[in-house]
Amino acid sequence: MRNLTLLTDLYQLTMGQGYFNEGRHEEIAVFDVFFRPNALITYSVAAGMEQVADYLDALSFTQDDIAYLRSLGCFSEDYLRYLSTLRFTGDAVAVREGEIVFPYEPILSVRAPMIQAQLVETAILTFVNHQTLIATKAAKIVDAAGGGVMEFGLRRAQGADAGVYGARAAMIGGCVGTSNVYAGKMFDIPVSGTMAHSWVMNFPSELEAFRAYARSFPDNCLLLVDTYDTLKSGMPNAIRVFGELRAAGHEPKGIRLDSGDLAYLSKEARRMLDEAGFPKAIVCASGDLDEHSIASLKEQGAKIDSWGVGTKLITSADLPALGGVYKLAAVFENGKEIPKIKLSDTTEKITNPGVKEVYRLYDRRLDKAIADYIVRAGETVDESKPLELFHPVETWKRMTVENFRARKLREPIVKDGKRVLPACPLSRSAAYFRAEKGRFWEEYMRRDMPHIYKVDLSPALYELKARLVREGKEN
Amino acid sequence: MRNLTLLTDLYQLTMGQGYFNEGRHEEIAVFDVFFRPNALITYSVAAGMEQVADYLDALSFTQDDIAYLRSLGCFSEDYLRYLSTLRFTGDAVAVREGEIVFPYEPILSVRAPMIQAQLVETAILTFVNHQTLIATKAAKIVDAAGGGVMEFGLRRAQGADAGVYGARAAMIGGCVGTSNVYAGKMFDIPVSGTMAHSWVMNFPSELEAFRAYARSFPDNCLLLVDTYDTLKSGMPNAIRVFGELRAAGHEPKGIRLDSGDLAYLSKEARRMLDEAGFPKAIVCASGDLDEHSIASLKEQGAKIDSWGVGTKLITSADLPALGGVYKLAAVFENGKEIPKIKLSDTTEKITNPGVKEVYRLYDRRLDKAIADYIVRAGETVDESKPLELFHPVETWKRMTVENFRARKLREPIVKDGKRVLPACPLSRSAAYFRAEKGRFWEEYMRRDMPHIYKVDLSPALYELKARLVREGKEN
Repeated sequence: MRNLTLLTDLYQLTMGQGYFNEGRHEEIAVFDVFFRPNALITYSVAAGMEQVADYLDALSFTQDDIAYLRSLGCFSEDYLRYLSTLRFTGDAVAVREGEIVFPYEPILSVRAPMIQAQLVETAILTFVNHQTLIATKAAKIVDAAGGGVMEFGLRRAQGADAGVYGARAAMIGGCVGTSNVYAGKMFDIPVSGTMAHSWVMNFPSELEAFRAYARSFPDNCLLLVDTYDTLKSGMPNAIRVFGELRAAGHEPKGIRLDSGDLAYLSKEARRMLDEAGFPKAIVCASGDLDEHSIASLKEQGAKIDSWGVGTKLITSADLPALGGVYKLAAVFENGKEIPKIKLSDTTEKITNPGVKEVYRLYDRRLDKAIADYIVRAGETVDESKPLELFHPVETWKRMTVENFRARKLREPIVKDGKRVLPACPLSRSAAYFRAEKGRFWEEYMRRDMPHIYKVDLSPALYELKARLVREGKEN
Repeated sequence: MRNLTLLTDLYQLTMGQGYFNEGRHEEIAVFDVFFRPNALITYSVAAGMEQVADYLDALSFTQDDIAYLRSLGCFSEDYLRYLSTLRFTGDAVAVREGEIVFPYEPILSVRAPMIQAQLVETAILTFVNHQTLIATKAAKIVDAAGGGVMEFGLRRAQGADAGVYGARAAMIGGCVGTSNVYAGKMFDIPVSGTMAHSWVMNFPSELEAFRAYARSFPDNCLLLVDTYDTLKSGMPNAIRVFGELRAAGHEPKGIRLDSGDLAYLSKEARRMLDEAGFPKAIVCASGDLDEHSIASLKEQGAKIDSWGVGTKLITSADLPALGGVYKLAAVFENGKEIPKIKLSDTTEKITNPGVKEVYRLYDRRLDKAIADYIVRAGETVDESKPLELFHPVETWKRMTVENFRARKLREPIVKDGKRVLPACPLSRSAAYFRAEKGRFWEEYMRRDMPHIYKVDLSPALYELKARLVREGKEN
C-alpha cells in the first residue's frame, strides 16, 4: 500500500502548525462529510469507505516526508517532531459501501484531535467524492440498461487510480465486470474482453482473423464485427465461424458492435444470428454510451444483451466531480460539546451543527423508505409512537409517520485509530445497494426530474441550528 | 514505484494469447497515439511522457500477477510462462512534455513485438490522455488569467493519481503552484495554502483567528476574509491585523476571497487595502473558477492577483476525457514494412498508415509556426527549397512555404526497452511550453472559435493513404 499521508492540502499543515503553536492541536473536533444537491444528482451511492478506513489506519509520515516538510521552511522543529510520530488516534463513522445517500446528511464523520481531523480532510474527500461519483453514475447507467453493463473506461480514466477505484465503484453501482485487469486482481472483479480492431486488421482477411481467434478461444468466442462492414462482412463472417465452431462441438459466445447505429445494427445482427440458428449468441455494444444513449437505444428496440461503457462512466462525463464537503460540526471543551455552524447568505449552505446521527425511516407494512432523519447524538427515535416530520426550511410542510422502522445509517469504520470496518466483498456491497434500492419508490430514482426524497431534522437539531443562526447574526 | 503491469484491458492479454498460439507474437508492430479533434480542444499540451517511459522500462509481471491470470482459466501454461519473463524490449518515440500538439499527428509511437505493443496500449493511453487533458485545461485557464494560477483541486480529483499527476500536468500548462503536498514533494512543485473557514470558526472571533494565524506565520500572513461578512468583518479585521504585523516589523501577504461576487469584492478589497497603506498585499480568489469565469471577472475589472482553481481544472470539467487513441500503423514482415490503415465511413476517422515522422515548420523570418507536416519515415524535408503544402482532405487547398525551418517533433523516450528520456524538471517543461506558445500566432490559441492550425501530409504519405483506402474499398 502506498503511503498517502502527504496526500493533503498544504493549509491543513499550516493550520496544524497554528493549532500546535496555540496549544490547541489536541482539542477534539468533529467534522462531517456531506454532499450538496445539484441538478444532476438527487441520490448518490456511497463508496470509498474502505479506502478511508485503510488510509486512517495507516496514517504516518515517513522521515522523508518530514525532511520534505522541513525544506519548505515554514514549520517549526517542535511541530515537525510532533508530526514525525503522529498517528490517527480518532474515530470515524460512516454509511456502508453501497448505501443510498442524500444531500445534507452526514455520510461520514470524523472525531479526532484537531490537527489530525484537519490533516485527513483532503484525502477523505478525494476517496469518497471520487468513488461515490462513479458508483452513482454506474447506478444510473445500469438502471437505464436493466443490467449487463461492463466497465470499459480505463484508457480514458483520469490516471491509474481513477481507472482502478473507478472500476471498484462501478461494481458497487451494479456493473457486472470490467476490462481492467489490475482492478480485477485487486478487488476480485470479473474481467472481460476479447479483441480490438487491430486484431482484425492484423490478418489478411476478417474471416482469417475470426478463425484464428476461434482457434484460441473456442469456448469464449466473441467477435468484433464492425472493422470493415458490420452487416455485409462482419456478421456473415462471424456466422460462418460460429458454424465451424459448432461443427467442432463448441457454442459461440456472440458478437460485439463498436460503431455505427447501434439500434439498427443490433436488431439486424440479432435477426441474422437467430436465422442462422444462434439464438443464444449475445450481442454486445460499446461506443460512447451513457444512461441517456442506452435509454434511447432501448426505446427504439435495440437488441443488446451486454453494454460496454467507457469514457462517460469512468469520468462521470456530465458531472465529473461531486461537491462533497467536510465541515466542522463541533469541538469539545473539557469533554463538553460546543456545536459549530457555518453560516452563509445562501440558506442551503448553512451547515447542520453538532454531533449527529442519521436514521432512515421505513414503512413497516410496505418496507419502503419514507425519509431520512437527522438527530442530535444521544437522541433516540421511538418507533412505538407517531413521529411528526417537517421540512428543514419550509417548516410548515409537515407529515406524521406511523408504524415505521428506524435504521441507523452509520457504523464505526475506525475506532481509536484502528480500522474496525470488516472487509466486504464488492459483490456483497453491490447486492446491498440493489436490495436497498428496492426499498425506494422508483419515483425517487427517476433519471429526469425525480421526486425529492425527504431528509429532515429532529426538533432538537432544528432548535440548535436556529439558535446558532440567530446568535451568529447577532455577532 | 507501483508495478502497473496489469494496468491493461483484458483483451490485450487475450489477443496476446491468440498471437502466441499463432506464433505471431514476436512480429514487430508500430502503433501511433494521436488525438481526434473536438469542439473544445484545437490544440493540446502534451504531458505524461515521463510516466510512459518509466512504465515501459519497468514492465514485468510478478509471480502474483501470473497466478491471478492463471486463475482466470483462459490462458495456456506456455503463454503464462512466456509472460512471466516478458519485458518491454521495444522503442518509443514521443514529443516533449509541454509540446503543443494537434489532432491527427502521432505524438507518441511504439515499435515492439506485437504482444508487447498491445499489452502497453491501455496504460499509455491512460497516462497521456489524462495528463495532456489537464495540462491543456491549465494552459487555457492560465491564458485567461494571465498568470498567477494555483492548482487547488485535490479533494475533487478522481482519486489520488488524478490529484497528483493532475497537479504535475497543471504545472506544465503554466500553473505556478499547487495545494497538493504529495505532488509538491514528488515533483518539486511550489506548494501553497494558509487557512480554511474551519480555522476562523474555531476561534471565539474572526479577529482572534486572524491574530492567532499572524502569530504563527508573521511573514506569510494571508487571511481568508469571507467566513462571516467579507467587507464588514473580514476586511476590517484583516487590515487591523496587518497593521499590528507591520508595527511588529512584518509585511502582510494578503487576503483570500472564496465566495460572493469576486469582481465586486476584489475591487472593494483592493481599495480598502490600498487606502489602509497595504498596496503590496495581494488579493487571492477561489471558488468554482475556470477560464470562462476568470475571463469574465477580468473583463469587469476584478482586482485579483492570484487565482486558486480547483474542481474545474483538476477534472477538466467541461471535457473530462481526451479521446486519444492508439492505432496500428504498420507491421514488419522479414524486416519489410507493411503499412496498415483503419478504414471508416467517417473520413476523419481513417488513420494515417505506415511508420511516420512529424515536423513543425517555422517561418525563419518571424520565428512563427506555419504548419505541422507528417511524412513517411525516411523522407527528408529540404529546407532549402519551397515546399508546397496541401489540405489532407480538401487537397485543392494549397500553399507554398519558403524560407522555413523544419523541426522534428519527436525524440526517442525508450530504446530497446530502456528509458532514454532524460529527467526534466517540470519548470523546464513549463518554460518550454511557454516559449513554444510564443511561436504560435495567438489566433490559433483563441478560447472561442480559434483559427485551425494546419497539420498536413507529405505527398508520399498522402499517396500511400489514398492507395490503401482504394485497396481497402476493393476488398
